[in-house]
Amino acid sequence: MTAPIPDGPLNLAQQLIRDHLVAGEMSPGREIALRMDQALLQDVLGTLVMLELEAMGLDRVKTEPSVQYIDHGLIQADNLNAETYLFLKSACERFGVWYSGPGNGISHPVHMEHFGVPGQSIVGCDSHTTAAGSLGMLAIGAGGIEVAMAMAGEPLYLTMPRIWGIRLEGSLPDWVSAKDAVLELLRRHGVAGGKDTIIEYHGPGLANLSAMDRHVLANMGTEMGATATVFPSDGETRRFLAARGREADWRPLAAEPGCRYDLEETLDLSALEPMIALPSSPDRVVPVREVAGEPLHQAYVGSSGNPGYRDFAVVASIVRGRQVADGVSLDINPSSRQVLATLVRDGYLADLIACGGRLHQTGCNGCIGMGQAPAVGRNSLRTVPRNFPGRSGTREDSVFLCSPETAAASALAGAITDPRSLDMAYPRIDEPERMVVNRELFTPPLPPAEARLKPLQKTENTPALPELAALPERIEVPVLLVAGDNVSTDDIMPAGQRVMPYWSSVYASAPFTFEALDPDYARRAEASRGHGGHAIVAGHNYGQGSSRENAALVPRYLGLQVVLAKSFARIHWQNLVCFGALPLSFVDEADHARLERGDAVVIENLHAQLATGTELVAEIVGKGRVKLHHGLTERQRSLLACGGVINQLRYGSAPPEVVQSR
Amino acid sequence: MTAPIPDGPLNLAQQLIRDHLVAGEMSPGREIALRMDQALLQDVLGTLVMLELEAMGLDRVKTEPSVQYIDHGLIQADNLNAETYLFLKSACERFGVWYSGPGNGISHPVHMEHFGVPGQSIVGCDSHTTAAGSLGMLAIGAGGIEVAMAMAGEPLYLTMPRIWGIRLEGSLPDWVSAKDAVLELLRRHGVAGGKDTIIEYHGPGLANLSAMDRHVLANMGTEMGATATVFPSDGETRRFLAARGREADWRPLAAEPGCRYDLEETLDLSALEPMIALPSSPDRVVPVREVAGEPLHQAYVGSSGNPGYRDFAVVASIVRGRQVADGVSLDINPSSRQVLATLVRDGYLADLIACGGRLHQTGCNGCIGMGQAPAVGRNSLRTVPRNFPGRSGTREDSVFLCSPETAAASALAGAITDPRSLDMAYPRIDEPERMVVNRELFTPPLPPAEARLKPLQKTENTPALPELAALPERIEVPVLLVAGDNVSTDDIMPAGQRVMPYWSSVYASAPFTFEALDPDYARRAEASRGHGGHAIVAGHNYGQGSSRENAALVPRYLGLQVVLAKSFARIHWQNLVCFGALPLSFVDEADHARLERGDAVVIENLHAQLATGTELVAEIVGKGRVKLHHGLTERQRSLLACGGVINQLRYGSAPPEVVQSR
Repeated sequence: MTAPIPDGPLNLAQQLIRDHLVAGEMSPGREIALRMDQALLQDVLGTLVMLELEAMGLDRVKTEPSVQYIDHGLIQADNLNAETYLFLKSACERFGVWYSGPGNGISHPVHMEHFGVPGQSIVGCDSHTTAAGSLGMLAIGAGGIEVAMAMAGEPLYLTMPRIWGIRLEGSLPDWVSAKDAVLELLRRHGVAGGKDTIIEYHGPGLANLSAMDRHVLANMGTEMGATATVFPSDGETRRFLAARGREADWRPLAAEPGCRYDLEETLDLSALEPMIALPSSPDRVVPVREVAGEPLHQAYVGSSGNPGYRDFAVVASIVRGRQVADGVSLDINPSSRQVLATLVRDGYLADLIACGGRLHQTGCNGCIGMGQAPAVGRNSLRTVPRNFPGRSGTREDSVFLCSPETAAASALAGAITDPRSLDMAYPRIDEPERMVVNRELFTPPLPPAEARLKPLQKTENTPALPELAALPERIEVPVLLVAGDNVSTDDIMPAGQRVMPYWSSVYASAPFTFEALDPDYARRAEASRGHGGHAIVAGHNYGQGSSRENAALVPRYLGLQVVLAKSFARIHWQNLVCFGALPLSFVDEADHARLERGDAVVIENLHAQLATGTELVAEIVGKGRVKLHHGLTERQRSLLACGGVINQLRYGSAPPEVVQSR
Repeated sequence: MTAPIPDGPLNLAQQLIRDHLVAGEMSPGREIALRMDQALLQDVLGTLVMLELEAMGLDRVKTEPSVQYIDHGLIQADNLNAETYLFLKSACERFGVWYSGPGNGISHPVHMEHFGVPGQSIVGCDSHTTAAGSLGMLAIGAGGIEVAMAMAGEPLYLTMPRIWGIRLEGSLPDWVSAKDAVLELLRRHGVAGGKDTIIEYHGPGLANLSAMDRHVLANMGTEMGATATVFPSDGETRRFLAARGREADWRPLAAEPGCRYDLEETLDLSALEPMIALPSSPDRVVPVREVAGEPLHQAYVGSSGNPGYRDFAVVASIVRGRQVADGVSLDINPSSRQVLATLVRDGYLADLIACGGRLHQTGCNGCIGMGQAPAVGRNSLRTVPRNFPGRSGTREDSVFLCSPETAAASALAGAITDPRSLDMAYPRIDEPERMVVNRELFTPPLPPAEARLKPLQKTENTPALPELAALPERIEVPVLLVAGDNVSTDDIMPAGQRVMPYWSSVYASAPFTFEALDPDYARRAEASRGHGGHAIVAGHNYGQGSSRENAALVPRYLGLQVVLAKSFARIHWQNLVCFGALPLSFVDEADHARLERGDAVVIENLHAQLATGTELVAEIVGKGRVKLHHGLTERQRSLLACGGVINQLRYGSAPPEVVQSR
């Protein structure tokens, strides 16, 4: 065994990992265990986390702060969302968690504004938790159950990533901003290009990127599948904190001189131009000029993909004194109360209203399919991080990703427009010396003695989690679904107003599983439950996108035993293991093509096979054998033997009645 | 026959009617025909109006202006609403209608701001169209088909109402505002107390009410069932128009000295105190102090019930420098872009954001169940005009109606609070000399030659209207539903995000009919279609509330032949007749109690009975006869003989195939 910490000068990501290392060896590919200082929850996934904390019998969270945000389910079409807020607030009171109610804003920018501290670690049940890396935090998105474990004081387990140093040079030209930079990286590397890496930005170009510009890059590192994105904590970081009255939380952080990176890349900011991701994947990126002139129906500004004061102010400066083109909806979605209040103070909001912009409530909104869904096939330009098919709420949508500058220029023209073609000087926005700050809008944790007396305000829509059996020694299951590459968790568990109010209930959300890919899957899967379950077959990057654990938990509840895929997205792979389903990768990717719906997959001596190496063999009845790779650590194998984390915590083993029934 | 116009000095309502009288005699209870100068459409009912214009083969509307507002269906949870906007915009282009897109605001205040002209008449497919009476207009809400007729240049037919003069004396005390005044009138007279009247406010108290205060009273005259509410056009009216750059549209209007009213009442503004309507009817009114201390979960500001600049500014002034109580959502719903922009300019919006208020998009929103639905049984205080059960989006809701002052004071306290108990001076708001005005945000009508070439952008969700058969000579139908008093059109055709996107389609909205009162009605009614249809039995004030014509059209499509009720709300009665269903009132109200679901109602020689008097006789099989009153004019009888207005316009008679099948 080598030393757990590498010799020689460390890059910043390595330093942050070292500072939080509880166990393991900092060698790429090995499992490490990290102490988490802070935790972040959003509402539509926080419900399951709170139910998990209850199932674990937790008294009080250890992460400080832990913050529950209400930012996703803001529509309140019926009683369910308001009742979810009440449940979450009661759980915050019970477990010692901060509560940020509806109207305060999107978790990621709000957390930066009020709670982010350079050098600390944070885990969140939202894939874009990575955005806090913009402040020099080690910020990681994970499934809710892993967040719950961290809140209980357990370490977060990770495969030690490779550290991918991206050296920034030059400075952004006029009309080009941080979004264009990250879209260029997506163009180069695709939606799986950052897999098992931490992206660390360094170099002289950093000086030209504000903390909120860095947020854009750290946020969308997730779109490349990166485990985290790390920025130094420097003068820009200090300026960000100082503008929010939090300069005392600043400390300098940087890579040590002479450090090495596992992967190296250079991005010359000066050479960038406005970029755009075509429908319906964040990596279908081309220069804006290549699609200029396409008709436009909606321009959408906001989300965690472009949440900064600057991102709205630049739009306001572009539209000032002009009118949005007839037939275009310019949708303005403030990211945080602080940003909104400061835009009001500085006059920018007035411009956005005067030009014909449509101001929405502060929150995630249309980025997660909560309102503002476009008409079928009509082009919508958005500054959001993702454009997976149907995520807007419209099945056959046509959503592009772009910078605020491109969205604004296009809204004025009524067609996709390279902002460099505007007949005006580029309105470069200065960060305010002082934001409009109000910290009274958070409900702080109760003292422990008082907290212990608080009941959870549960309803029919927040039922207890299901009991899950452990995988048996012999699996024989039919393949219920064969999918291609890049299946996202949006494909597995749809978002949007129609479905998200039910995410707090495994049972109520089950009928929506895989709805768009295969509307009959849920029925067949439900039928497989109690009859040995079923398998899913998929291509590369299975489970990309959101960290939603229900994309693993609900299929598992419906009988999912094993997923055979070419490769997995990191968080979803972990979610499957945590809930006791087995993710296996084809040793020979060509085997994917041999499998069809209805095939029977047989794995003999499962636990013994898992214990004796990283590969195992399955029999496809009538088609012969396939070799599969599992990559499970001993810890994860013991987890699977229990039927998942909750059983392990509840019983220390597989649930008694399940052992009996085998 | 007496003279059509009364002798002697006329009150203002009589003058306005005289100035628009096309036919009939201005004697209460007689049918009159009025020329409509302007027309107002909102989106979720405008769709049917546009389909009706198409069915009528109209080339270009005659009302000037006609304005289509997008203000109800703003959530866009999927593609449907955005596609509705496209359809409506294309229909505006085709027929010569102004288009006000999403984000401009609620039709009623926006129409006042930009198009309202003292002395003109206006009809709108929204019951709160009456609000324009605040500017000295003759403003009437009607079913969509009547609005379509008016847009085609036909007169609007009405029963000449009694004119109810309400003399205002004194001035409002501190902490009491227009909403309290109209709630006091609702307390005195109930939700049917204004039936078949036009309320005309006069007297010295008027001088203390701004045009937007008057809007509150004119808006909620509808809640008393009044046909219209009329205010003089005076200095306040001039001030309102001048602040919006429209002083040239002003002209003075007032009752002639010595005029008489059919009904007279005095309201001493000085004697009022803060009032509140308890769940779940606008007339369950008590002083706020009687329910002070009840716990609060939501305070909702906005809607056409309190849309004025003042209504938001006073809330801002109350909450300035304070924080909303923990656990209370203070929902701010701007009423118009002009109001929002001016609140930003004058600093009030900053206060509303800083106190913890949650700013929503500009529009009808939660007033019509589009978002912001409360948790079951949790108290919600709202400045909206209506609190019918479930209208908030939550089935078992607990919604109170109150003034902005009461909402703000309660939000700060976390409990229902009489605002007079606040420890501060009353912040009386001055109307701005100049609002922030932008008229470029409307799309004006196209020139006729260009308009004629425009196709309607229809989808599956905007299908053609159904063919409706005329009532036969002999009706024999089962009673499918027996209801009590005050059934609202919300009860008949639910609103809210779940249902409203389908209102453009009679077929898609049919399954929701009477959902809350009787979830099985739609199935039974559908089964009655083509088998002779069915009857509904109801108590007093059947069809109160919204003007939505689908509450008549959809049951009619489902086979409704006849409604037997103690009494009807005006607009719904007319909608039934317009679509060829027969509204009949019990001569002896006690007969209501004799009828049960499943009873068979037989009416022999229907058209002959209708023609020979105002009463007819029905046989309830096995229970004997009941006497019924119809009150139909000859015009309406001929309409019924055709099976409704659309048949009359299409065929000049009942549809050919239906005549054949009898």
